[in-house]
Amino acid sequence: MKPEIIDALKSAVGEAAVLTEPEDLIPYGFDGTAAMKQAATCVVMAESADQVESVIKIAAREEIPVVTRGSGTGLSGGSVPVEDGIVLCLVKLDRILEIDAANLTMLCECGVITKAIDDAALPLGLFYPPDPGSMKISTIGGNVANNSGGLRGLKYGVTRDYVMGMEVMLANGERCWLGSKCVKDVAGYSMKDLFIGSEGTLGIITKVLLKLVPRPAARKTLLATFDSMENAARTVSQIIERQIIPCTLEFLDRKTCRCVEDFAKVGLPTEAAAVVLMETDGHGAVVAEEADAMAEIARENGALAVEVARDEDHATKLASARRSAFAALARIRPTTILEDVTVPRSRLPEIVKFIEDIAAKYDLEIATFGHFGDGNVHPTFLTDETNTAEMERVHEAMGEIFDKTIELEGTITGEHGVGLAKKPYLPKQFRDASYGLLAQVKKSLDPNSLLNPGKIF
Amino acid sequence: MKPEIIDALKSAVGEAAVLTEPEDLIPYGFDGTAAMKQAATCVVMAESADQVESVIKIAAREEIPVVTRGSGTGLSGGSVPVEDGIVLCLVKLDRILEIDAANLTMLCECGVITKAIDDAALPLGLFYPPDPGSMKISTIGGNVANNSGGLRGLKYGVTRDYVMGMEVMLANGERCWLGSKCVKDVAGYSMKDLFIGSEGTLGIITKVLLKLVPRPAARKTLLATFDSMENAARTVSQIIERQIIPCTLEFLDRKTCRCVEDFAKVGLPTEAAAVVLMETDGHGAVVAEEADAMAEIARENGALAVEVARDEDHATKLASARRSAFAALARIRPTTILEDVTVPRSRLPEIVKFIEDIAAKYDLEIATFGHFGDGNVHPTFLTDETNTAEMERVHEAMGEIFDKTIELEGTITGEHGVGLAKKPYLPKQFRDASYGLLAQVKKSLDPNSLLNPGKIF
Repeated sequence: MKPEIIDALKSAVGEAAVLTEPEDLIPYGFDGTAAMKQAATCVVMAESADQVESVIKIAAREEIPVVTRGSGTGLSGGSVPVEDGIVLCLVKLDRILEIDAANLTMLCECGVITKAIDDAALPLGLFYPPDPGSMKISTIGGNVANNSGGLRGLKYGVTRDYVMGMEVMLANGERCWLGSKCVKDVAGYSMKDLFIGSEGTLGIITKVLLKLVPRPAARKTLLATFDSMENAARTVSQIIERQIIPCTLEFLDRKTCRCVEDFAKVGLPTEAAAVVLMETDGHGAVVAEEADAMAEIARENGALAVEVARDEDHATKLASARRSAFAALARIRPTTILEDVTVPRSRLPEIVKFIEDIAAKYDLEIATFGHFGDGNVHPTFLTDETNTAEMERVHEAMGEIFDKTIELEGTITGEHGVGLAKKPYLPKQFRDASYGLLAQVKKSLDPNSLLNPGKIF
Repeated sequence: MKPEIIDALKSAVGEAAVLTEPEDLIPYGFDGTAAMKQAATCVVMAESADQVESVIKIAAREEIPVVTRGSGTGLSGGSVPVEDGIVLCLVKLDRILEIDAANLTMLCECGVITKAIDDAALPLGLFYPPDPGSMKISTIGGNVANNSGGLRGLKYGVTRDYVMGMEVMLANGERCWLGSKCVKDVAGYSMKDLFIGSEGTLGIITKVLLKLVPRPAARKTLLATFDSMENAARTVSQIIERQIIPCTLEFLDRKTCRCVEDFAKVGLPTEAAAVVLMETDGHGAVVAEEADAMAEIARENGALAVEVARDEDHATKLASARRSAFAALARIRPTTILEDVTVPRSRLPEIVKFIEDIAAKYDLEIATFGHFGDGNVHPTFLTDETNTAEMERVHEAMGEIFDKTIELEGTITGEHGVGLAKKPYLPKQFRDASYGLLAQVKKSLDPNSLLNPGKIF
């Protein structure tokens, strides 16, 4: 990068906030995605929206690409640097600016940690439901840019459902506000919805106005184990048919169960082929009733065991079977590739079975867990990126899983985003004129393709 | 319109489905908006998505504007014809194509009547919550194109919250599918969210995939009257503070109370300055508890009377005070102009007071009612469009109300859309670069401005 550009950036954000030394750049060369790296050339640590504006204006003038990132927990390579571009890191824009209890909203900067939002809502009896797995370190700006999901999707929805407004820097450095504190607002196109999930390719989100909801008064956690995925699936279907919408309906497949038991010793039966973690929250009377009904439905469908949490500690212990899944799997082989396909809920057993068959066909280790209620499945490839032959099989297997997902009316990414990882597969899912719309919108809002270029398409 | 174009349209949809006789065109010259008319030149009644595609292709080739409409219940002039354009009426695309109880979805054509959707969900114990005032005659396509609200917004959200996917015809006649049956889907930009609320200016929605929810088991309705809007407002705030989110929190102001009592004799006290209709739904035990709490809060805040419905009939009677508001007001003067400003909920008493003062200042009759829980207020001008002097005062008063709304961080339209009616005021609300984004998106998706041109901006 030309020294005069580095100088311009330094005068915009301060000398110490522009990193160019190779050893300083190392942590910005990747995100949470396995096997995706690109050395950063220059990292800018902005501290305010004004600084972001200045950086974008320099980038626009000099036609340098900008890759924005928060904590870099993304799972699709969305914040992997672009060669000779600026990496704009926004973790220091971390102030909660307002909590408006009368209107149930919170205004915060993009770098606030997701969990800090819910922590700040708690003393007011309020609740910010989206809980991506990375919530202890991910930033809200990254969550909004990726429309992050979490474990509570079925009942509470995803990040999009809680974004009422945002401040965005456009590709030319202009700043604008989208949305409002109004529960209803139909003035003009919903531009905020276009920026949610746009993965930093249309604009840079610097502030977010979030919707909060009353905190549920009670919660009850259950863990059921089954000797087949079919019994687990029937349990889930019957829960929904009985008009129960739990906040959490998570599952582990046979392979994941074994790894989890090996790792965390939570007491899962060795013959377990499926574990389902269920959680209901809300009014105390309703929670008690729903928990009983779910336990009964699980037993009727041949559950090997159904444990109902006695208290918070016990609930945490039961949930740890699911929460430790990724950690348990990650220790098996050098490389852990976490996929994110999603199908209509009723097709979940089909896709899980298909993944098992694919693992056998390609002689691969694939463990699957995820969000049963959302049909959101994380087939996890336990592999070794230095083994070229195996990695080829991984990519072929992945391609088949994506094809099957699309055949089942699913999506290649339920919550991780497209980034670099899913980009080659996106045209398969967008089979008609809709694929062209994405490029038209990008061209219209970022004509010189400066914002996170090469991501999504 | 050139005879060869009329002929092309007739061969696309059949002779009888193309209306060109002046007497046949009359009903298509206006929608539900007072004082907005434009004679239609040619109306095409399509019966299928294929026919819509053919019509758009003819329009694109001949560069003729197309104004799409359903039942024409819009309240912002959004479906008022454009001179020398085609009016494309889609009420005959009225088939419900699939109800998928396992995935809680319904797929239907755009011309299905809103209420028919909920009626079809009912036997399966399912629920389609959005209930715009026109739900007995409005079409779902129109609801989606306008992102319609209704009485249940606070708890259940608006139309957008129930749209999972759609089939859209683009301006060049290409057909595409957006969204999926997946609860989570982050593949590419959320184009469906751009089309929701785009008022027919970006594409023509021909099919809609809707989300359904379990039908609440119980419901309780209450009607409270107050001698001041402040007491009513305090009641509403305290209900929310107590973590109760009722499905309905409607209000009438003093003027509306008087007109309603005159018209419907529902027994409102003559000193009533505010009526609040409250409805809670869900689990029986919770509903009973919440209804008691709401009644108590209303009494603590000096309610003149609090009536709790004994049964469904009584509930309907109580709700009729609110439901008859528009009919009661419409009989007072020749012209009834229904506005739709929305403010953050906590600012509602301020805007209601401001509207009262404006009515006095301009010597106008303005009655206000609406959705307290959403901050969505319908100031209703009782006037006479043939009285030029009075209409000038109406427009000045309206301008002041819009300015105040924007000052209170509100929106000039909460649920009716921009159309023609709000178009002049939109730039006041979009004060920064965001206004330009609307035109950029329009230009990108409809470069020749053939789809509902002149609406929104």
